[in-house]
Amino acid sequence: MENFFQILARDPFSRARSGKLELSHGTVFTPVFMPVGTLAAVKGLLTEQLEEMGTDILLANAYHLYLRPGMDIIQKAGGLHRFMNWRKSVLTDSGGFQVFSLAPLRKISENGVVFRSHIDGSLHEFTPEKVIEIQEILGSDIMMPLDECIGHSGLYEEAEQALRRTLSWFERSYVAKKREDQVLFPIVQGGMFLELRRKAAAHALSFDPPGLAIGGLSIGESKEKTREILDFLIPLLPENKPRYFMGLGTPEDLLEAVEQGVDMFDCVFPTRAGRTGLAFTKRGRLVVRNAPFRLDFSPLDPDCLCYVCKHYTRAYIHHLIHAREMLASILLSYHNVYFMIQLMKEVQKAVKEGRFKPFKESYLQSMRGDGRFEEMGLSEK
Amino acid sequence: MENFFQILARDPFSRARSGKLELSHGTVFTPVFMPVGTLAAVKGLLTEQLEEMGTDILLANAYHLYLRPGMDIIQKAGGLHRFMNWRKSVLTDSGGFQVFSLAPLRKISENGVVFRSHIDGSLHEFTPEKVIEIQEILGSDIMMPLDECIGHSGLYEEAEQALRRTLSWFERSYVAKKREDQVLFPIVQGGMFLELRRKAAAHALSFDPPGLAIGGLSIGESKEKTREILDFLIPLLPENKPRYFMGLGTPEDLLEAVEQGVDMFDCVFPTRAGRTGLAFTKRGRLVVRNAPFRLDFSPLDPDCLCYVCKHYTRAYIHHLIHAREMLASILLSYHNVYFMIQLMKEVQKAVKEGRFKPFKESYLQSMRGDGRFEEMGLSEK
Repeated sequence: MENFFQILARDPFSRARSGKLELSHGTVFTPVFMPVGTLAAVKGLLTEQLEEMGTDILLANAYHLYLRPGMDIIQKAGGLHRFMNWRKSVLTDSGGFQVFSLAPLRKISENGVVFRSHIDGSLHEFTPEKVIEIQEILGSDIMMPLDECIGHSGLYEEAEQALRRTLSWFERSYVAKKREDQVLFPIVQGGMFLELRRKAAAHALSFDPPGLAIGGLSIGESKEKTREILDFLIPLLPENKPRYFMGLGTPEDLLEAVEQGVDMFDCVFPTRAGRTGLAFTKRGRLVVRNAPFRLDFSPLDPDCLCYVCKHYTRAYIHHLIHAREMLASILLSYHNVYFMIQLMKEVQKAVKEGRFKPFKESYLQSMRGDGRFEEMGLSEK
Repeated sequence: MENFFQILARDPFSRARSGKLELSHGTVFTPVFMPVGTLAAVKGLLTEQLEEMGTDILLANAYHLYLRPGMDIIQKAGGLHRFMNWRKSVLTDSGGFQVFSLAPLRKISENGVVFRSHIDGSLHEFTPEKVIEIQEILGSDIMMPLDECIGHSGLYEEAEQALRRTLSWFERSYVAKKREDQVLFPIVQGGMFLELRRKAAAHALSFDPPGLAIGGLSIGESKEKTREILDFLIPLLPENKPRYFMGLGTPEDLLEAVEQGVDMFDCVFPTRAGRTGLAFTKRGRLVVRNAPFRLDFSPLDPDCLCYVCKHYTRAYIHHLIHAREMLASILLSYHNVYFMIQLMKEVQKAVKEGRFKPFKESYLQSMRGDGRFEEMGLSEK
């Protein structure tokens, strides 16, 4: 575990750093964006395409895969990598969040959580041990423990009780873990309460984990609140462990979090935005569906070198959206995921060259657009 | 035009032949299957993928593209090839068939046909000249003239009147055509009436066209009827002109038509079947959605060398179908189109080696399945 994470460069003017993770399926340079393949597929993209655009790690979800296709199938396939034809790394979320957000019924006890499947209503139980077992069958490179998730408006007592359970569940997860080729990150919970976050961090660190996940943020709270908690939490964490902010997603959010010292990100936003006709560009987001793009024969992002930007125009993709062609979602998802991967590569470079802060500032300024793009149908979402 | 079509080999035991077409965007070996990209996109597939699987020519539709995105856009893009990022050949259908099958209102006169758009109800007129103009803007390598299509149960008088119009419209199309880098095939119509088919063929040949299209078949009539008309029609056509059977689609149908002397095919079936979860294999069709494939880790077609069969299993695609992942449609469409392209390559080889008949027989026997596949969920559609 000694060489699991290595910091390659630190930004002298912020907590941003660049580093590398050594996982069983290869090296991952950080900061890193992990495309989300919840159900063993990143929506609309072949694993070949993910690899060609430079993806080194992607995310899948234990809750979803346990329910569908089911563990017997993944096991017989020889694990998730082989099942989905992906030879690089995978991080699996435990599905704690999904149990609490998707399942139509759930009953929490000390032992775990009993819930109904959101697909067919069948009854299941997740215990910390069960969730580790699932992820050992999946064979993900980085596993997450079962945790109890509460909303961002939860009361202190509620958050404290949930945290107590999360901590106890992590201890059992830690004990249950058997495979040596996987790592387990504790999830730092604690809701919106700094004191609980401190307690969670201390507990996590007492296990000397290879890395830490930050959970229960980016779930609807204000950006100021997110920043406040990160500002408080990150200094409590040792430098030498990678920090994974679960579910954070827009380019702007990532840059802010990198500055605060976060190393790993995942979000469905790039593919979901793609399916709704939205393209990320260095000059802001384009609602490619809108009329101004009808006759615009420039690439989605003139500064982008991805396959889509090299070969296709806004006018063509605008047409595909209106014709309801699947290819619109494919091209936009490809470009948006590439955009995020590339953004993280540029961040790594900027950190190495000691110019992260100016890089970030000019990037954000450019992303806010120069007015021209707004006229052209830019969404200010 | 002298070298437009060259026959490379003839089967001594049937009318099957293999040859090559010299088009402005490259050589096309026949018999050939042309994937359908009605709206300037083959559903679910990148042009890069079509090229890598060996597609030399694809189909698009003038009626559809005229309505959406509209000719101003295609013109400004520099033609259809550039608009859709396809550097090989394109055949465009005139859209006569679509006017008669999709438009909610149509009024036919000697001059042409007035119709309402099936998209927004707007009123448009197609004349033979207009349809040539549209296809000259599209810049397709092979154009089709406006024709009048009737159902397969049309009466003789109806078919005769429609044919009279189709012939007169072709004369005007022939005169209207200006570009030298495109060719125009007359469409042999005449409904289910041999006498009208003979008249249509004679008229078409009086123009010494580079090739001929056979229209008004595969529109619901019995297979015996199709065969009867082909049997009658093909001997009326000179050997040295390619014959394009419009809209014929299953692997079995193609083999039968090749035997009768047809050289070119198009159909939406491979992609449409893919989107419904159906895979073509040399041993028949697989309904991959069905339960027997849940734990089947073999490729869609064990005899296939396509990208999908090299990397993905039936179990994985079965999962994607049930999870409603777009990737299921993508993978199945890729495989099915590859299957058709590859089938035509094998046909070319069999004809060259003088063994088309045994090749066809063993292929059809294999396609009918060996019983085992039926148990595994094979559709006998």
